[in-house]
Amino acid sequence: MTTHSRGPHLTLCVGLDPQPAVLEAWGLPDSESGLKAFVRAIVPVLESSRCEVVKPQVAFFERFGVAGMRHLTVLLGELRSRGIFTIGDAKRGDIDSTMSGYAQAWLTPGSDFETDAVTLVPYQGLRALEPALTLAGEHDKKVFVLAATSNPQARQTQMAIRSDGRTIAHGVVDDLWRWVEGCSASAGAYGVVVGATVAVSDYTFDLRDYPGIPVLAPGFGHQGAVLSDAHSLFPETTPVTAVVARSVLLHGEAGCAGAIEAASAELSS
Amino acid sequence: MTTHSRGPHLTLCVGLDPQPAVLEAWGLPDSESGLKAFVRAIVPVLESSRCEVVKPQVAFFERFGVAGMRHLTVLLGELRSRGIFTIGDAKRGDIDSTMSGYAQAWLTPGSDFETDAVTLVPYQGLRALEPALTLAGEHDKKVFVLAATSNPQARQTQMAIRSDGRTIAHGVVDDLWRWVEGCSASAGAYGVVVGATVAVSDYTFDLRDYPGIPVLAPGFGHQGAVLSDAHSLFPETTPVTAVVARSVLLHGEAGCAGAIEAASAELSS
Repeated sequence: MTTHSRGPHLTLCVGLDPQPAVLEAWGLPDSESGLKAFVRAIVPVLESSRCEVVKPQVAFFERFGVAGMRHLTVLLGELRSRGIFTIGDAKRGDIDSTMSGYAQAWLTPGSDFETDAVTLVPYQGLRALEPALTLAGEHDKKVFVLAATSNPQARQTQMAIRSDGRTIAHGVVDDLWRWVEGCSASAGAYGVVVGATVAVSDYTFDLRDYPGIPVLAPGFGHQGAVLSDAHSLFPETTPVTAVVARSVLLHGEAGCAGAIEAASAELSS
Repeated sequence: MTTHSRGPHLTLCVGLDPQPAVLEAWGLPDSESGLKAFVRAIVPVLESSRCEVVKPQVAFFERFGVAGMRHLTVLLGELRSRGIFTIGDAKRGDIDSTMSGYAQAWLTPGSDFETDAVTLVPYQGLRALEPALTLAGEHDKKVFVLAATSNPQARQTQMAIRSDGRTIAHGVVDDLWRWVEGCSASAGAYGVVVGATVAVSDYTFDLRDYPGIPVLAPGFGHQGAVLSDAHSLFPETTPVTAVVARSVLLHGEAGCAGAIEAASAELSS
């Protein structure tokens, strides 16, 4: 990815969170059939808004069981056929063969839940995620590992200090960085989640020490960060994927494409 | 749950991990049809071994996409109709409405993925899990929140020290305990995952300070802990659900029921 002297390379990502309030804004019932209709309606909206990156929030499909997951498969296929980059916000994490199972689900070409990238949770240690990191490398996929998330309840956990003096969040970034170095992988494939509402200095790390590490940044809109500030929130050596979700989806079917275009303009302003 | 003076109340749980090696041991291909056949074959085995608690490992169903998740639904239904308690080892975790989505998926009566209990991951803070804790209480379900897991890569993370001087693992147990007190919920519904291989004292906490908090304990068998030691690994005020998975499943269809019965005898020896 290229960087500009005026700030980080910024990409807008539309988070697809078909939660009850969003379905209502789209005139749809909070049901499996409502979700199915949402999937059908959102794809042309994303296409017309020239959206390049989409992050489906898996929980909102999983809540409708097998049928909900089938709608996710349909959505992912529609996005793939339009060349839209998909980030499965699955927040999976486990160990050993179990981690391999999740990696197989989300990062294998041709699988029902194939995405271009997936979010992972490092509660059992970054090294436990290795099967997914390896598979991502093999299939030219990406991962984003949760480091410092945007929700305030996370601070006490993610600011805890490890035996090496690093915070948990810092340790995730640092461990991932070392893993990438150790396997001579492409640094661009392995990113972290750092909320736009987070003061990174609180977490004892500086993203400038990890140049090129991709950041997936939630926290814009509803959670308080402003898109037009994005270029000053992150160092210019950090490629940032800035997520908007509710703030565009709640405009409903008629207003969503315009809201995405406005968000895109605000991000590059 | 009752406690005995000779040690903690112990319950055996069979972990269903249909990973490639397990399917092979059952003479089945590592495919969606192999998984389907495994689900059909395992249910009578569990029934004949008088198994009371089963923990399906969700990743091994999810890896086969929509069809895999349908097989999980079938399995859960078969177990439910036999009165077998199910723990969905889903390790889900998120915030706000997203967490509500996962809770809806796993803890709602009548849903495809309805289980009696689900495992949750507190990387974004125990408080972020509140929608699931609340829903579990409403539907008489249980949760097990990851505290100190059995894998060695987890130690650096879970032993990190929070601002209140507690380790991450300790903080999870303590936060959950306080949450239960705060909402006057039934303590028995809210448990933690503490690996049988873990020296709890390393994590600055003592389960005796949290009497009655249920513990789901992986780490037996393959990972090194011995079932007959279980009564000395945990305090007598702690109800323990001890998990065996590969060590019984790898006996194949012919030997699995016997291996479960042997494990049950070993646990109560």
